[in-house]
Amino acid sequence: MTTTPVTVLGLGPMGQALAGAFLRAGHPVTVWNRTPAKAEPLVEQGARLAASVADAVAASPLTVICVIDYDAVETIVTHAADALAGRTLVNLTADTPARARAMAEWAAANGIDYLDGAIMTPTVTIGGPDAVLLYSGPAEVYERHRATLAALGGSATHLGADPGRAAAHDVALLDLFWTSMAGLMHAFALAREEGISAADLAPFAKGIGDLIPALLDELAAEVDRGEYPGDTSTIESAAAGMDHIIHTATGHGLDTTVLIAARAIAQRAIADGHAKDGFTRLTETMKGAPATR
Amino acid sequence: MTTTPVTVLGLGPMGQALAGAFLRAGHPVTVWNRTPAKAEPLVEQGARLAASVADAVAASPLTVICVIDYDAVETIVTHAADALAGRTLVNLTADTPARARAMAEWAAANGIDYLDGAIMTPTVTIGGPDAVLLYSGPAEVYERHRATLAALGGSATHLGADPGRAAAHDVALLDLFWTSMAGLMHAFALAREEGISAADLAPFAKGIGDLIPALLDELAAEVDRGEYPGDTSTIESAAAGMDHIIHTATGHGLDTTVLIAARAIAQRAIADGHAKDGFTRLTETMKGAPATR
Ligand SMILES: NC(=O)c1ccc[n+]([C@@H]2O[C@H](COP(=O)([O-])OP(=O)(O)OC[C@H]3O[C@@H](n4cnc5c(N)ncnc54)[C@H](OP(=O)(O)O)[C@@H]3O)[C@@H](O)[C@H]2O)c1
Ligand SMILES: NC(=O)c1ccc[n+]([C@@H]2O[C@H](COP(=O)([O-])OP(=O)(O)OC[C@H]3O[C@@H](n4cnc5c(N)ncnc54)[C@H](OP(=O)(O)O)[C@@H]3O)[C@@H](O)[C@H]2O)c1
Repeated sequence: MTTTPVTVLGLGPMGQALAGAFLRAGHPVTVWNRTPAKAEPLVEQGARLAASVADAVAASPLTVICVIDYDAVETIVTHAADALAGRTLVNLTADTPARARAMAEWAAANGIDYLDGAIMTPTVTIGGPDAVLLYSGPAEVYERHRATLAALGGSATHLGADPGRAAAHDVALLDLFWTSMAGLMHAFALAREEGISAADLAPFAKGIGDLIPALLDELAAEVDRGEYPGDTSTIESAAAGMDHIIHTATGHGLDTTVLIAARAIAQRAIADGHAKDGFTRLTETMKGAPATR
Repeated sequence: MTTTPVTVLGLGPMGQALAGAFLRAGHPVTVWNRTPAKAEPLVEQGARLAASVADAVAASPLTVICVIDYDAVETIVTHAADALAGRTLVNLTADTPARARAMAEWAAANGIDYLDGAIMTPTVTIGGPDAVLLYSGPAEVYERHRATLAALGGSATHLGADPGRAAAHDVALLDLFWTSMAGLMHAFALAREEGISAADLAPFAKGIGDLIPALLDELAAEVDRGEYPGDTSTIESAAAGMDHIIHTATGHGLDTTVLIAARAIAQRAIADGHAKDGFTRLTETMKGAPATR
């Protein structure tokens, strides 16, 4: 077992999970958080709480940062650039690809080895087999810390040298995740209005959740080919389905703005003559922002 | 093997799949469709094409109808009420719970046994183990036709006597499905703008798709308890994630109205003082339609 020291900056739910996984894997762990009280459970498990960011990063060749966004990252690391020079910073905070690339430039200008990463699974998965982490940045830096980062568990993928590539995957995948989560919350709210408990809906909702992974390769192939056959299900039929949902939800006084926005895109595709195409056609329709059409 | 004759009205992608499954299970099948040409492949497999709806329903004790919506159902069956009297109509068309209840009343007034159903899986699943069908209406009518309907495959659930209950599940589950599908199309569109093919995104998108079923029981329990703890992930953190996606997508000129609508609900929850609650809190926030607040 390796015992490379690791520093973790940021102790929100995810930072705590990351620090906990490094501790369980036997690494000496130094932590820092804007609100130091959150370090308590980790200190009980053997972590050292540093008094400053500079003090924290000086303790380890590898620092992992995971906070709410890159504004917070910048606030935290800007004053510790000297301490970070000659060391590696792995930024697991979610933000845009552009911010990731800008951060990599800042790191390079300050002599800091930099990897940008994204965590695709919830806190409970960290350190276990189900964790999914993406990294991008210099392959050499990734290889140097690969064994240490393996403590975070699950599958890790290095997506290449472009530091924005992990964030690009992250925004696309979180787009799917948060939109789906909004749909799930709305489904629960609608079911409740119809006298169906969330627990009663759950087994069927799992079935729906399983459908998308099962359909995914076929849908992806259509998108990459730029062909959108409607032989098993059409945009017109989808729009009719959305009508029923919107009608029922509106009747119960629910906020239905999300699905109304989705239907408007389908309606635009229909108005463009694509009623009988498959739903994958909407990847084209979405190219035109409504305001500019 | 039972050989009860079955009639199928409507031969869109789903009607064709249903008729095909009955044929493969050895039932004599009579079909009718507004556009008769669509019956050809089924006639080749042994189905009989009826010249009128009345002629079609007279051929079988059980008629299954599956068309685009209940307006189409009414157009089709209104003129065949006499022929349907004393027989069973199973309506697998998707529409609202209110329409399902009204249809059941019409059927009762005309001496027609009526079940309202919903199909929760795509055409390819029909007749195989993965099909999921929901039914509601009189238990006695369901039991009488259960063996015949089993030809449609997979799992069938009778949800009780209220004829609107299958449709109520259907709208809630399709709410999840179509919102998620809109999210997936947007994820593909966003990935493409970032130079990531749909095929490259697909394996990670499957992982995201698998997350929701894994989280579902826990989320459902929160919703039913009316407690929305944010200890593993907060609305504030979700809104920050949505910001990055919207920012990146807007930068590429994509239509981002769906996620903007979802973020507006999260922002309303935050404005109401729930920044540190979990995402399930949004089931409450959605109760107030924005225009009426
Ligand atoms: N939770 C999950 O399931 C999950 C899953 C995948 C990815 N992620 C990503 O992981 C990152 C962290 O998420 P999280 O769940 O731990 O919670 P979070 O609420 O996104 O982040 C909380 C952390 O950010 C710090 N912070 C916020 N504003 C700050 C500021 N202005 N200056 C300094 N520090 C600041 C907090 O410090 P204080 O404690 O002092 O407030 C805390 O350490 C996010 O990018 C998130 O998208 C989370
Ligand atoms: N496809 C799927 O994967 C799927 C999955 C689950 C549930 N469903 C549900 O199954 C139902 C049928 O879907 P579908 O995929 O077969 O395609 P669809 O496009 O929803 O329905 C096509 C059928 O409706 C008929 N129709 C449309 N307007 C009509 C009218 N005014 N009068 C008479 N008939 C009319 C069509 O007749 P013509 O052929 O003459 O146009 C055709 O038979 C829908 O409620 C859908 O939500 C479908």
